[in-house]
Amino acid sequence: MTDKTANIPEVVEEVRALFERYEQALIDKDVEVLDATFWNSPHTIRLANHEHGYGFDRIHAFRTARPPGPGTKEKRLRLDIVTIGRDIATVTLVYKVRGRDMTGRQMQTWVRFPDVGWKVIAAHVSMIAEQPVL
Amino acid sequence: MTDKTANIPEVVEEVRALFERYEQALIDKDVEVLDATFWNSPHTIRLANHEHGYGFDRIHAFRTARPPGPGTKEKRLRLDIVTIGRDIATVTLVYKVRGRDMTGRQMQTWVRFPDVGWKVIAAHVSMIAEQPVL
Repeated sequence: MTDKTANIPEVVEEVRALFERYEQALIDKDVEVLDATFWNSPHTIRLANHEHGYGFDRIHAFRTARPPGPGTKEKRLRLDIVTIGRDIATVTLVYKVRGRDMTGRQMQTWVRFPDVGWKVIAAHVSMIAEQPVL
Repeated sequence: MTDKTANIPEVVEEVRALFERYEQALIDKDVEVLDATFWNSPHTIRLANHEHGYGFDRIHAFRTARPPGPGTKEKRLRLDIVTIGRDIATVTLVYKVRGRDMTGRQMQTWVRFPDVGWKVIAAHVSMIAEQPVL
């Protein structure tokens, strides 16, 4: 079993850079980057606010159907990047939803694969009316 | 880098048994099992329907405050357990919410640590009005 040390700084920075690239790609609707961020597998799952993406192909189909633009993220409230060893990470972003009195939550599980590097294998996006303690 | 083979059957079954134990502990309000399921770390995050548990201590406090009982899960609609190698897993359960025309979604990231075994390091629970394709 490999080392499971939490938050090795250079691993956190690796994942942070990929996460920020993904967030920018959402705004730009850069489907190439969006696709490259997620694990190309039928096992990949992305549960979003209004859709369930089971498998890479369905996730890709939602990408191409979505318009570009700033999306629902008005303001980041808290971002947590947690890494375990050098191959596992979670990213959790809590944000104010644009134009609505709601809190958005985005959680991703990242794994570093030997052949293709870091990929999101699971993601879950939701909104709640509450404004929880951060 | 260790093997990242997806869904090795015995690994899936290991995680499935722990997940089912956790689900039963929610119903029974077995705080010992609930606590044993989550990584005892300030980095553990559990975003629930009405609360954000940042760190094991806050997650534990929510556990003790919650009443026992069947909770909001009326009927399972789809359960996916995805494992990568022998130390990484995600569990995604989609369910009908009890007494409401809503879909519940629960996603967990599990990591197997050398000292304490499998633990949930991140979890996210949400509800949506839609009934997405499964």
